[in-house]
Amino acid sequence: MSEIRVIKIKQSVLANNDARAQKLRGELKQHGVFLLNVMSSPGAGKTTLLKNIINRLKGEFRIGVMEADMDADVDGKEIASSTGVKTIQLNTSGECHLDAKMTSEGVEALGYDDLDLIILENIGNLVCPAEFDTGATASMVLLSIPEGDDKPLKYPLMFTKGNFFVFTKMDTRIVFDFDVEKASKRILALNPDAKFFPVSAKTDEGIAELVEYLRKRINTYKAE
Amino acid sequence: MSEIRVIKIKQSVLANNDARAQKLRGELKQHGVFLLNVMSSPGAGKTTLLKNIINRLKGEFRIGVMEADMDADVDGKEIASSTGVKTIQLNTSGECHLDAKMTSEGVEALGYDDLDLIILENIGNLVCPAEFDTGATASMVLLSIPEGDDKPLKYPLMFTKGNFFVFTKMDTRIVFDFDVEKASKRILALNPDAKFFPVSAKTDEGIAELVEYLRKRINTYKAE
Repeated sequence: MSEIRVIKIKQSVLANNDARAQKLRGELKQHGVFLLNVMSSPGAGKTTLLKNIINRLKGEFRIGVMEADMDADVDGKEIASSTGVKTIQLNTSGECHLDAKMTSEGVEALGYDDLDLIILENIGNLVCPAEFDTGATASMVLLSIPEGDDKPLKYPLMFTKGNFFVFTKMDTRIVFDFDVEKASKRILALNPDAKFFPVSAKTDEGIAELVEYLRKRINTYKAE
Repeated sequence: MSEIRVIKIKQSVLANNDARAQKLRGELKQHGVFLLNVMSSPGAGKTTLLKNIINRLKGEFRIGVMEADMDADVDGKEIASSTGVKTIQLNTSGECHLDAKMTSEGVEALGYDDLDLIILENIGNLVCPAEFDTGATASMVLLSIPEGDDKPLKYPLMFTKGNFFVFTKMDTRIVFDFDVEKASKRILALNPDAKFFPVSAKTDEGIAELVEYLRKRINTYKAE
């Protein structure tokens, strides 16, 4: 009995969430603001990669950052101090994902008017964040070399929902068995339009290509 | 409105879950079976560590394994083929945790009578699995060096709920900044009784100490 009730409630909330996400996506488009949702496991290197990307794009685009954490604020402080861009911290009080309502509240707190790009660093988790449409324009999913190339097999929803994929910590291939081609094929089987960016924030490998891709996507979106 | 309903349902299910977990724990105790719940992020090295531990303990204890995955069976096959112990795969159909009911069903499928130790490899996730008491005798939490020593700050519930903590992939300290002392202090602040085992399944560093600790805990439990 109890399971059936949970599932019903979840579906109802998810339906509400989808409508809310579409509304937010429309509002963002109207204001010419690109919202990038960033997802990965804990410790895959989201914050480090974002600092790197933001510092390369902030001369061109007005950037705001929403850092989501269950109840910490370390990443928000780190991003704000190292990039100088407008940053807010969203605390989910233990929830393992952001939904469209929480994302809308964050966007409202940051403000639409003086921004071109909002980056949402989602909770570190390969499961729940993939289940909720945040209303983002695009989703970037990170998979770090130490996690292993089997993750797309074990967390298929995340690798289905992402739009483009960044293999992080490429410099650590010397100590880990991670087959980039195998991982890419596993993601393509779920997500035929997936794009891949192997990077290292330590050596700068691949960062320029990823930044160029983001630049083009944001400019195309704003020009449409 | 919708949030309030979700929270109420969740609390009700959690209360049921706690009762069910206590029941399972009692049944396990009665049968002298130690249930070890193993939790971590995706890719922290649960399967590799478990293979190593099982092969060192299987001469002494009759071991069964429950591999939980959202919808894959790769880890179950890997454990079964490399250790030869009785293994079943639990698929959660997308749920990011096991609750006491699912765990009970798994234990029933494995059978109580011819086992001393059941190992549950939970879903790779630092959030949801910590929210549900599975009914396990003890919980072992892995934190891998590549994930970073800040994880206890960001996922405090997991580091509060675990009973002992294994720092995995210690051989990779050459490429990562991870302060074992800092991580330990952060966990102790949440969990004053925490015990720590820095290990590498690649070099065997620390594995003997961890196995000895498990051996003592299981024997004490069975003798009580």
